[in-house]
Amino acid sequence: MENNIELYIEKLGSKAPTPGGGGVAALAGALGAALASMVCNLTIGKPKYAQYENELKAVLESAENLSKKMLALAGEDETAFEPLSRAYSLPTETDEQKAYKEKVMEDSLKIAADVPLRAAKGAFDVIVLMERLATRGSKLVISDVGVGVQMARAALLSASLNVKINTKLMKDRFVADILNDEIEYVVNEGVKLADEVYNTVLEMMK
Amino acid sequence: MENNIELYIEKLGSKAPTPGGGGVAALAGALGAALASMVCNLTIGKPKYAQYENELKAVLESAENLSKKMLALAGEDETAFEPLSRAYSLPTETDEQKAYKEKVMEDSLKIAADVPLRAAKGAFDVIVLMERLATRGSKLVISDVGVGVQMARAALLSASLNVKINTKLMKDRFVADILNDEIEYVVNEGVKLADEVYNTVLEMMK
Repeated sequence: MENNIELYIEKLGSKAPTPGGGGVAALAGALGAALASMVCNLTIGKPKYAQYENELKAVLESAENLSKKMLALAGEDETAFEPLSRAYSLPTETDEQKAYKEKVMEDSLKIAADVPLRAAKGAFDVIVLMERLATRGSKLVISDVGVGVQMARAALLSASLNVKINTKLMKDRFVADILNDEIEYVVNEGVKLADEVYNTVLEMMK
Repeated sequence: MENNIELYIEKLGSKAPTPGGGGVAALAGALGAALASMVCNLTIGKPKYAQYENELKAVLESAENLSKKMLALAGEDETAFEPLSRAYSLPTETDEQKAYKEKVMEDSLKIAADVPLRAAKGAFDVIVLMERLATRGSKLVISDVGVGVQMARAALLSASLNVKINTKLMKDRFVADILNDEIEYVVNEGVKLADEVYNTVLEMMK
């Protein structure tokens, strides 16, 4: 994965097969998780929030792990796309070739769907952390809770689209339906919670 | 501004005064705009979309400009925060010092509110480009239109919070109200349009 922000954005905008929307989804989740860390770091140690100290330390640890995990998933998304990209161009002249391509496609689609599914679950976890921080984080950085929850919400919905483009192409509809149901559930619960947290932030900023 | 993605995320999560939510808002907008460029680059030249060729070239040019502008705003947000951060710690022992601090604070707040206001408008422009791409971009990258519009929506709402935290502290309520009305209008129109575009994407992915 390209590590320079400017070059990453340049490559994203180009015709290059990676990075794409799946990587951006995970990256947005990593930014959201980092904002959760920031809010913890700027709250822990303040006498006014001493009662939440232990809870905030636990949130900080989760946020740091999530941020690393989401950034790693942004890279994995690129790696997972490669075998799928290769599978698309396999020959289909003989029946054997067709059967082989179908098998490789199916396996590649499962890998390509798994990365955004994990990114979606990670984004959901960031939203849950933000719910805690909205009422326990320092009010001086309440807007950062709001930004973090919006990043996680965007990451969740973006990741869900990347699950769906892959399940749509699967021949194995049993697996596809399980994955679709799973992502649908995480999206519904996550968006509802994210919007509640955002409204709490707006109220607290008044 | 820190240019390495991993280090940017690390610094974001730390106690350091910058980067913060304002920079993340602009960065999300830059990622959204880059996805608009990508969709254009993967559609232009395809016979199936030849009728949109000129329109897509214009969208590409706007997307490239917006992506650069938003990335620059992520940097500007850090610079704009510095004078405000310094103003907070000015002495207030004498009446002269109090008056001076108030003036410096007021000026710094206007600069600090202006950057996210421009970021919010840029995010709105990205949403407008995505509306065009939802029906004119290659269907092979329709999910990237969906990711792009979610990034722009998150950028818009995140930037709006950063306008509000600054206008809230302004003594000049005339200017504060103008800025608040302006951001409220952009948010309402932008979120409505973003949700419409996202639903169009979902329909097209079925």
